Amino acid sequence: MKPTSLRHRIAIQLDVELNPRPGLSWFNRLIVAVILLTTLVLILETEPTLYEPYRVWFIGVEMAVLILFGAEFLLRLWTCVENPGYSSRLAFARSPAALFDLVVILAIGFSLVGLEGVVLRLLRLIRLLRVARLGHFSVALRNIGQAVAERRMELVISMVIAFGLLLLSASALYVIESAHQPEAFGSIPRAMWWSVATLTTVGYGDIVPVTPLGKMFAALTAITGIGLIAMPAGILASAFSAAMRRADKAHEPDDGE
Amino acid sequence: MKPTSLRHRIAIQLDVELNPRPGLSWFNRLIVAVILLTTLVLILETEPTLYEPYRVWFIGVEMAVLILFGAEFLLRLWTCVENPGYSSRLAFARSPAALFDLVVILAIGFSLVGLEGVVLRLLRLIRLLRVARLGHFSVALRNIGQAVAERRMELVISMVIAFGLLLLSASALYVIESAHQPEAFGSIPRAMWWSVATLTTVGYGDIVPVTPLGKMFAALTAITGIGLIAMPAGILASAFSAAMRRADKAHEPDDGE
Amino acid sequence: MKPTSLRHRIAIQLDVELNPRPGLSWFNRLIVAVILLTTLVLILETEPTLYEPYRVWFIGVEMAVLILFGAEFLLRLWTCVENPGYSSRLAFARSPAALFDLVVILAIGFSLVGLEGVVLRLLRLIRLLRVARLGHFSVALRNIGQAVAERRMELVISMVIAFGLLLLSASALYVIESAHQPEAFGSIPRAMWWSVATLTTVGYGDIVPVTPLGKMFAALTAITGIGLIAMPAGILASAFSAAMRRADKAHEPDDGE
Amino acid sequence: MKPTSLRHRIAIQLDVELNPRPGLSWFNRLIVAVILLTTLVLILETEPTLYEPYRVWFIGVEMAVLILFGAEFLLRLWTCVENPGYSSRLAFARSPAALFDLVVILAIGFSLVGLEGVVLRLLRLIRLLRVARLGHFSVALRNIGQAVAERRMELVISMVIAFGLLLLSASALYVIESAHQPEAFGSIPRAMWWSVATLTTVGYGDIVPVTPLGKMFAALTAITGIGLIAMPAGILASAFSAAMRRADKAHEPDDGE
Repeated sequence: MKPTSLRHRIAIQLDVELNPRPGLSWFNRLIVAVILLTTLVLILETEPTLYEPYRVWFIGVEMAVLILFGAEFLLRLWTCVENPGYSSRLAFARSPAALFDLVVILAIGFSLVGLEGVVLRLLRLIRLLRVARLGHFSVALRNIGQAVAERRMELVISMVIAFGLLLLSASALYVIESAHQPEAFGSIPRAMWWSVATLTTVGYGDIVPVTPLGKMFAALTAITGIGLIAMPAGILASAFSAAMRRADKAHEPDDGE
Repeated sequence: MKPTSLRHRIAIQLDVELNPRPGLSWFNRLIVAVILLTTLVLILETEPTLYEPYRVWFIGVEMAVLILFGAEFLLRLWTCVENPGYSSRLAFARSPAALFDLVVILAIGFSLVGLEGVVLRLLRLIRLLRVARLGHFSVALRNIGQAVAERRMELVISMVIAFGLLLLSASALYVIESAHQPEAFGSIPRAMWWSVATLTTVGYGDIVPVTPLGKMFAALTAITGIGLIAMPAGILASAFSAAMRRADKAHEPDDGE
Repeated sequence: MKPTSLRHRIAIQLDVELNPRPGLSWFNRLIVAVILLTTLVLILETEPTLYEPYRVWFIGVEMAVLILFGAEFLLRLWTCVENPGYSSRLAFARSPAALFDLVVILAIGFSLVGLEGVVLRLLRLIRLLRVARLGHFSVALRNIGQAVAERRMELVISMVIAFGLLLLSASALYVIESAHQPEAFGSIPRAMWWSVATLTTVGYGDIVPVTPLGKMFAALTAITGIGLIAMPAGILASAFSAAMRRADKAHEPDDGE
Repeated sequence: MKPTSLRHRIAIQLDVELNPRPGLSWFNRLIVAVILLTTLVLILETEPTLYEPYRVWFIGVEMAVLILFGAEFLLRLWTCVENPGYSSRLAFARSPAALFDLVVILAIGFSLVGLEGVVLRLLRLIRLLRVARLGHFSVALRNIGQAVAERRMELVISMVIAFGLLLLSASALYVIESAHQPEAFGSIPRAMWWSVATLTTVGYGDIVPVTPLGKMFAALTAITGIGLIAMPAGILASAFSAAMRRADKAHEPDDGE
């Protein structure tokens, strides 16, 4: 508990597991903020009307992020031995977390020398996952994860039923409308585009059935879509309720006596 | 428990009821995979831009499936006597499961000799139902089924209310808009097309009211639509919750002592 | 319990309250079927492409319904004294149920002699309400009614919040977009049409913001709309759950001993 | 309990905290009605086709409201000393409530002499908040607030997941469709407009993917959108259920004996 050495004090700032206090250290808060900022930069960079006039600013931010992430990586490499979880610096350097950080740094570096790749650049977002695993956030995430995992089969069945209805509806519309709108309903895969938009109640309206029979089936599909939304909502609601009831019971073990 | 004869060993692979282990046998997993593959083929076949260049491949897959299903049927006929549920081979051959398999095989055969029919071909999907009836999947399916069945009347009433609102909204828009848009709102059945799209929040946008009064009623319809989604979601949520609470109680009978 | 007289036997058929068995008598089932049929006729009549060629059939059905409802009314008037709830035939004739039946009969009569009125004709649907008040249907209806009534204030608040968000979103879009699209966003009432379509996730797409700032606010509105659907769904789910828990407790009073 | 002085009797009418009876005093009901009316006036005023012909009426209503609110403010200033919460008239005049009322009065005054500003004018709506804090309304509001606050982290995570999916879907469509539709999918911010509309199931349809791969990802986005609606609905449902269970327990403390 007495962080005498500088290395230990830095390790506490960098390593979420070593941090004795709940919540994020100020350094990790900065990293989260920088990741979010760099994500915003990433999004805006793709817009030519923004990128062209402010090109030098975008490059500046990217370089600053590169330097920050690089420095953080070197500091982590230096301080990792404070965490008993890593037997040596090599063990840390070979850990998935470190390799992933390295990939992110290389990705930013490559993007600066012109080797682009949006998907590659989005990788840095996954850094958030490591930082996110803590405190209230992690409890809530586990609650959601458990609730979803517990009703896994019911949710899978909902999706199977949904896919069955999707296929049925697309087939029906294909049979009914293909003669009138060959471009939109000329095959089941084409009809599925309309079907997905209707069953999920998105309803783009770029394609709509024109025959009375097609409209009747479309109406049925739309009504069925409500059930498709209601079912997973109901399943998740019951799963969350059960998870909370269990959590309450665990906290009040002498509730019934 | 000692599957000495070859016939018994094959029966265990084929017959879900005889399988001593939980889950599907490797043969039935293959059948499920083949059914899913053949469904995909079925979907893609309807697309001319895919079917024409790869016609020979599609026919090849269909023939392979036909042979596999045919062989499976003959094997089932040979091994069915291992299942005490069938008194004789004739009893099996007259069971709905066997007749259905035969229909599927004939349907594939007919489609290969040119007698088409999308609906007929989709029949093979129903084969999945028989295989699906097992293990975790079946428990989850029963949970969903029970929850829906238990709140049957509430769900029916939701639909009755929904249909009433649909009729009311279509009538209102017909009265208000028929003079301005006779093509879209010239009769209640026509107005219902718009009404369904709005109440289910699909909102194609191919038809929208143009008069201020029509827009006011349309807004009311859209807001009502939210309640229409919320009601079945709420009913199903409470039903799933109750089903899970009962299941928990059954597992912990000495919960209250 | 011994329906000796003809009048008593007819009264049992006609009067839901006198029917000793659960469910509807065959006569009332016929009435329900006729009301549903006449509703369908009512819907289809408004479509000129159907009405013109089959005019004589539509009139025939309407006349048959008129005669049936008239005969039923006279029979009710004759048998009403069997129900101790009515002190005299005049008491029955002045009851809301009887007056309503009379209005329905007159409405059908007027429509046959050319005095039209869609709204008037829809009145006959309300007859269903009287017949619906029974059996499983009525229990389920009461369940829904109680759940909604109990969480009345929460649902009202949801609507107040929804209206506030609607106003906020419409005002924002009016300020941002009115210069670019005066026809669609030139005033708050006009902007509300877009706002309702977005908040309820209907999304017609007849009007969409064109400025970047307008699109940002529109995106916020759409995301808020999800909460607007989730909130009543959650409120109703908890209300249905509570109602069912209470019902279970009432049925098993010695549950805890 | 004996409101002898006129000032005390007026204070009871004006000050919600002093009102001995549950619910709103008739004066505060009038204020609520006037605020709602003035909001309606505010909305309608922005519509030129309504404002131009009825300009004098709109100005009349605004002036009447100004006089009413001014008189109310002076009365409050006179009677505020009846509420022990305010040590002096100056303490009341410096309270947020009084300052806010003054801002509203000034905003109406400025708008009458031509200094417009829709946002400024909407401020008066916030007056409703002060009046709303009471009775059944306030209990229900607290229920909703508590339920939302308790599951705060789960709802935040839902939004984080939603934002991640939004970014993923926009990036995918940007990569796939930017070559075909540079105007609509030429950058991630542009693609996000489509993405939000699809994930929230709004589905304007002003922009839709045209390539088969783009449509496949769009279908995935739409299906994911259902989960995005189901998750907060489920979380809120479980939170409301828990809040109600706790409230029931608090009311029946001897439930288990």
